Amino acid sequence: MHLNKTQTNDSPTAVTVIGLGSMGTALAQAFLAAGHPTTVWNRSVAKAAPLVAQGAVQARTVADAISASPLVIACLTTYDATLQVLEPATAMLKGRTLITLNTGTPAGARGVADWAARHGIRFLDGAVKNRPDAVGKPDTLLYYSGDKAVFDEYEATLKVLGGDTVFLGTEPDLAALYELAVGGTLLPALLGFFQGAALVGKRGRSASTLVPYTIKWLQMICAALPRLAQEIDTGDYSQPASSLGLFYEGIPYDHEIGAEGNIDVTWHEPMHDLLRRAVAEGHREHSISALIEMLRKPAPAA
Amino acid sequence: MHLNKTQTNDSPTAVTVIGLGSMGTALAQAFLAAGHPTTVWNRSVAKAAPLVAQGAVQARTVADAISASPLVIACLTTYDATLQVLEPATAMLKGRTLITLNTGTPAGARGVADWAARHGIRFLDGAVKNRPDAVGKPDTLLYYSGDKAVFDEYEATLKVLGGDTVFLGTEPDLAALYELAVGGTLLPALLGFFQGAALVGKRGRSASTLVPYTIKWLQMICAALPRLAQEIDTGDYSQPASSLGLFYEGIPYDHEIGAEGNIDVTWHEPMHDLLRRAVAEGHREHSISALIEMLRKPAPAA
Ligand SMILES: NC(=O)c1ccc[n+]([C@@H]2O[C@H](COP(=O)([O-])OP(=O)(O)OC[C@H]3O[C@@H](n4cnc5c(N)ncnc54)[C@H](OP(=O)(O)O)[C@@H]3O)[C@@H](O)[C@H]2O)c1
Ligand SMILES: NC(=O)c1ccc[n+]([C@@H]2O[C@H](COP(=O)([O-])OP(=O)(O)OC[C@H]3O[C@@H](n4cnc5c(N)ncnc54)[C@H](OP(=O)(O)O)[C@@H]3O)[C@@H](O)[C@H]2O)c1
Repeated sequence: MHLNKTQTNDSPTAVTVIGLGSMGTALAQAFLAAGHPTTVWNRSVAKAAPLVAQGAVQARTVADAISASPLVIACLTTYDATLQVLEPATAMLKGRTLITLNTGTPAGARGVADWAARHGIRFLDGAVKNRPDAVGKPDTLLYYSGDKAVFDEYEATLKVLGGDTVFLGTEPDLAALYELAVGGTLLPALLGFFQGAALVGKRGRSASTLVPYTIKWLQMICAALPRLAQEIDTGDYSQPASSLGLFYEGIPYDHEIGAEGNIDVTWHEPMHDLLRRAVAEGHREHSISALIEMLRKPAPAA
Repeated sequence: MHLNKTQTNDSPTAVTVIGLGSMGTALAQAFLAAGHPTTVWNRSVAKAAPLVAQGAVQARTVADAISASPLVIACLTTYDATLQVLEPATAMLKGRTLITLNTGTPAGARGVADWAARHGIRFLDGAVKNRPDAVGKPDTLLYYSGDKAVFDEYEATLKVLGGDTVFLGTEPDLAALYELAVGGTLLPALLGFFQGAALVGKRGRSASTLVPYTIKWLQMICAALPRLAQEIDTGDYSQPASSLGLFYEGIPYDHEIGAEGNIDVTWHEPMHDLLRRAVAEGHREHSISALIEMLRKPAPAA
């Protein structure tokens, strides 16, 4: 049995934050603002100064930092960096709770989970799905996976970091997996926007003129996702809202962007190949979501 | 001087809709719902039947359809199809107003504009930035470009099709240009989602579990666009919210998606090449928006 420390409103849980980069600093600030006794440590010592000015206690060593709190939040660059920093203080972590909030691979998360299990460290992995300046806001999403008892015990404390706090499941690598799954949209979407900006720029129009329309467009994509997801989940692509053929016929429009704007659009080529293969395999009248079937096959030899 | 017919609230402008595919039908329905006398024509005659049941007049020929209204809206597949259908009735269009609402290339829009100018046809090109079922809603975006006098005269009538009705400028191909600029984000963003769905699917999780997180993620991208646009507009990439280097270091994560999910991620390769070239050219500490500089160069020889 664990004492539910977070629910004692008169004495918020003491928290240690290890790693005071942009994100770690934001996390520590949120805990301080919520009245949690907060101990901090960072490799480059100077980064702690603003937090100390806000009431944090700066620990001299990692072991000292850990000893100050039952709950240790690590926010370093990677899981490797996290293990590197924490391993010398393994004994001090025993019986305490470690929550990692860095980006990393599912394999990295599994590695930390194994290490924690071997050493009697309670472990939960999480991810902040937003930027540091969103930490602490009611709408900010963080998701977690691993030890459900840890999540339940500290849920109220974790909500200090963002009101949209979600438990994904007990497999410790799920948060990292969803992080990959969600994040893969970012670069392609931004490149699409940059390309559009280059195109209107050729006509003396600012990129800013494109922003409201792109936002509406992304909102339309958001609205389309539940149906596309359902098609994928049922494997029934036969009732398309937008057919794969419509995208296939749109291939020349990408080339037109290149021609009108003198823009390098070759980054679309492999996407066009996926469309062509899907059409060749009979998906033309199917929903665009059928494209997932192409991603599930090995890439054809070049 | 043109009589401002739209502002006469007691008698809404008579409108002709040519092309009754999914979108043309939605347009005609919106006009009917708003009380406009609506004449329709479609190559496949049967498609007009539901509209006739709702009060539309079905014209036997294109020329008859045009003669019924001062305002003609064409919504065929392409500009080529539009010219093919309208050219035999050119004489009937003289002095009337034509508004095209199909997707197409800027060159196609310029072609119709030239033809219209040669024949004394007032012309405005536009695009519906949404799906047919959104036509008529207050938030639905349509943008137009070309003859400003036409837009001003018919703005109230055009708002029947969507409350967010915008005039982009007097160059007749601007709507088509913005259409390309905005639309180029769709396929890459969807592929990112499908890939994520394939990844979580390998772990027995449905694509639907990914939807709320992807929506939040796209909303975060939306929130980042104004700043990225400003960086592009000023050409100052030196104060990054997200550095290009961060994306460059994230390249292995895309490969991890492939390895964890047994997914074909080769469609990311040219994007990675753009990142590598940008880093090689000194953009590592710059904002990710500096990637636009790579798109503005010719593709390197393969
Ligand atoms: N910033 C964001 O927008 C954002 C958003 C979501 C998620 N995240 C994730 O949050 C994590 C932290 O990001 P950040 O933006 O805070 O990064 P950052 O500003 O670059 O800070 C990195 C932190 O890791 C420490 N570190 C790295 N390697 C170390 C090592 N071997 N030993 C000791 N300390 C080490 C650094 O210490 P020094 O100060 O001594 O270098 C610093 O505290 C990353 O995984 C990132 O992907 C960030
Ligand atoms: N549907 C959408 O989600 C959506 C959204 C935004 C924009 N748009 C754009 O709106 C336009 C129309 O789309 P839609 O969805 O209505 O397409 P659709 O359902 O496929 O209908 C196409 C229309 O064009 C007609 N047509 C094509 N070629 C013709 C020709 N040579 N002669 C005479 N008629 C011809 C068809 O006549 P028949 O009935 O005789 O074949 C039909 O009326 C397209 O440019 C599309 O990109 C559509």
